[in-house]
Amino acid sequence: MVLPGAELALVRRPDITYQLFGDEAVVEPMLDNYPRLKEVSTFQHCEVSVRMDDKPSQALRRGRRKSSMWRAIEAVKNGEADVCISAGNTGALMAMSKFCLRTMPGIERPAIAGIWPTMRGESVVLDIGATIGADAEQLVDFAMMGGAMARALFDVARPTVGLLNIGVEEVKGLEAIRVAGRTLRENDSLSLDYKGFVEGTDIGKGTVDVVVTEGFSGNIALKTAEGTARQIGEYLRAAMNRTILAKLGYLLARSAFDRLREKMDPRKVNGGVFLGLNGIVIKSHGGTDPIGFASAVELGYDMVRNELLAKIGQDMAHYRRGGLGAATEEEEVR
Amino acid sequence: MVLPGAELALVRRPDITYQLFGDEAVVEPMLDNYPRLKEVSTFQHCEVSVRMDDKPSQALRRGRRKSSMWRAIEAVKNGEADVCISAGNTGALMAMSKFCLRTMPGIERPAIAGIWPTMRGESVVLDIGATIGADAEQLVDFAMMGGAMARALFDVARPTVGLLNIGVEEVKGLEAIRVAGRTLRENDSLSLDYKGFVEGTDIGKGTVDVVVTEGFSGNIALKTAEGTARQIGEYLRAAMNRTILAKLGYLLARSAFDRLREKMDPRKVNGGVFLGLNGIVIKSHGGTDPIGFASAVELGYDMVRNELLAKIGQDMAHYRRGGLGAATEEEEVR
Repeated sequence: MVLPGAELALVRRPDITYQLFGDEAVVEPMLDNYPRLKEVSTFQHCEVSVRMDDKPSQALRRGRRKSSMWRAIEAVKNGEADVCISAGNTGALMAMSKFCLRTMPGIERPAIAGIWPTMRGESVVLDIGATIGADAEQLVDFAMMGGAMARALFDVARPTVGLLNIGVEEVKGLEAIRVAGRTLRENDSLSLDYKGFVEGTDIGKGTVDVVVTEGFSGNIALKTAEGTARQIGEYLRAAMNRTILAKLGYLLARSAFDRLREKMDPRKVNGGVFLGLNGIVIKSHGGTDPIGFASAVELGYDMVRNELLAKIGQDMAHYRRGGLGAATEEEEVR
Repeated sequence: MVLPGAELALVRRPDITYQLFGDEAVVEPMLDNYPRLKEVSTFQHCEVSVRMDDKPSQALRRGRRKSSMWRAIEAVKNGEADVCISAGNTGALMAMSKFCLRTMPGIERPAIAGIWPTMRGESVVLDIGATIGADAEQLVDFAMMGGAMARALFDVARPTVGLLNIGVEEVKGLEAIRVAGRTLRENDSLSLDYKGFVEGTDIGKGTVDVVVTEGFSGNIALKTAEGTARQIGEYLRAAMNRTILAKLGYLLARSAFDRLREKMDPRKVNGGVFLGLNGIVIKSHGGTDPIGFASAVELGYDMVRNELLAKIGQDMAHYRRGGLGAATEEEEVR
């Protein structure tokens, strides 16, 4: 799906050029089927491929310098490519990206950001699984990186940002979240509009442009939403197949169902963006199809075009580290 | 909605009797509208009502001994009631329940368990928000308590149990989850069938009868799923209203849509169950209606009828505390 996906992205972004990295025995014969892609691409043979079940440490050992994954990332480092897109092993891709590109000055830890379809449009959610846990400083970094991504992708000058928290009164949220909230509130010179805490229900509502959380709960939220969408899709399919009348109704409302399916199409928002590195790396879902892969390519293109990295740098320059002592003030939970 | 809900529950569980606690000026005149309920109820006037915005500490200070919430919990403690149902302030209800009923022997911390509709039926998910964070021992306790609840509610002798984790290779899950997994695997005499790690997508699939996680991610998962369901419902409504044909199709397939709505009806699974206390307390959603409140009452009734507390006690008796040193073995991530 990589080659047809890459060709598909050319339709909407005709000035893309590609550097393809892979096994020549596999890729070169296939490439002839995509003449338009071939025309704008160079191909580089690599002897090693990172396997989907390689552990990150294994992949680094086996694949450093010579794997297709490494060399695609290295092309970004060397300024030969603006963005690296891979549908390979997530853990290996993150480990190699960190090793090769290093984190941006002032950023301790990269995050993976996803685009979440909402009732109001789309939001950025991060971290969706780069690392488990985050302290207050890291959450603030995520807010700035997510804010920069929202500015690069959506047409907003000061994206709204919320910290994901839980609203049960007794447990007013993790200390780290409270401190991060205070720091964000104090840094009103940043290009983001901090809105306070948000809850799980707010993600789908689109209450804020950027939802910030640590990687464990972010990944759980993402996967749970995927599961729920699939479950409701199943319910709907079963209900529409139960009676003749329902089937007839389905046929009549066909265009409405197509529209719904399009709204819920996970391929449209394919692509986890690695933020906080000196270069942009995008992880496409491994099980996607050409349409999904094209989305990941276009996402990368748009972020490069809109100067994502420069935008993150701007906010980093304006940022005053907050007081990280005990947070005594109470912050509202919505 | 409490009084009509309580009366509604009587239809399906005709041997319920109620003790009602509240402000006589409010409740007594209303009670005359529900003669069937009045017949099986005693009413006790309480001078204090816990407010929805009281902090737990405030509620305890103002409401201990004399509030309707406290006295309803106390009735369980004194053996005058089998279960306490409240649609009030969650934090206050948990604080008072802990204070009045105390945790069961061997259980360090209570959890709130919810019933989650899945593609295969229903699952128990806990903790959905009693406390943030949990160590390995607490996760094991949650597994046992959730397992006992599944045995009390579903027709299974050894419910399947999974620990919620994230599947990204690089971050093979929290240490606490790994250790809890090992302990559960070693305790094969428990009345539960430990299936390993599950991911967010598995909740809606119904991969296991009991999904165990700590309260922060559990609450985020629950609220995110609610948000996603609402979002898709909105999409569907909008799509079906767009064209005449879609509207006509909707009318024809009306029964199918009603069925879908019923499947997704949050009122059917209303009720967060406080587990791990010497007594059963159920929190009904504050914004529900009589049908939802009746569900919470019936849930409590069924758990008492099926001896939930004795079932938790049985597993506690068979449980060998696991080795809590560093977990070195690798556990599979599904």
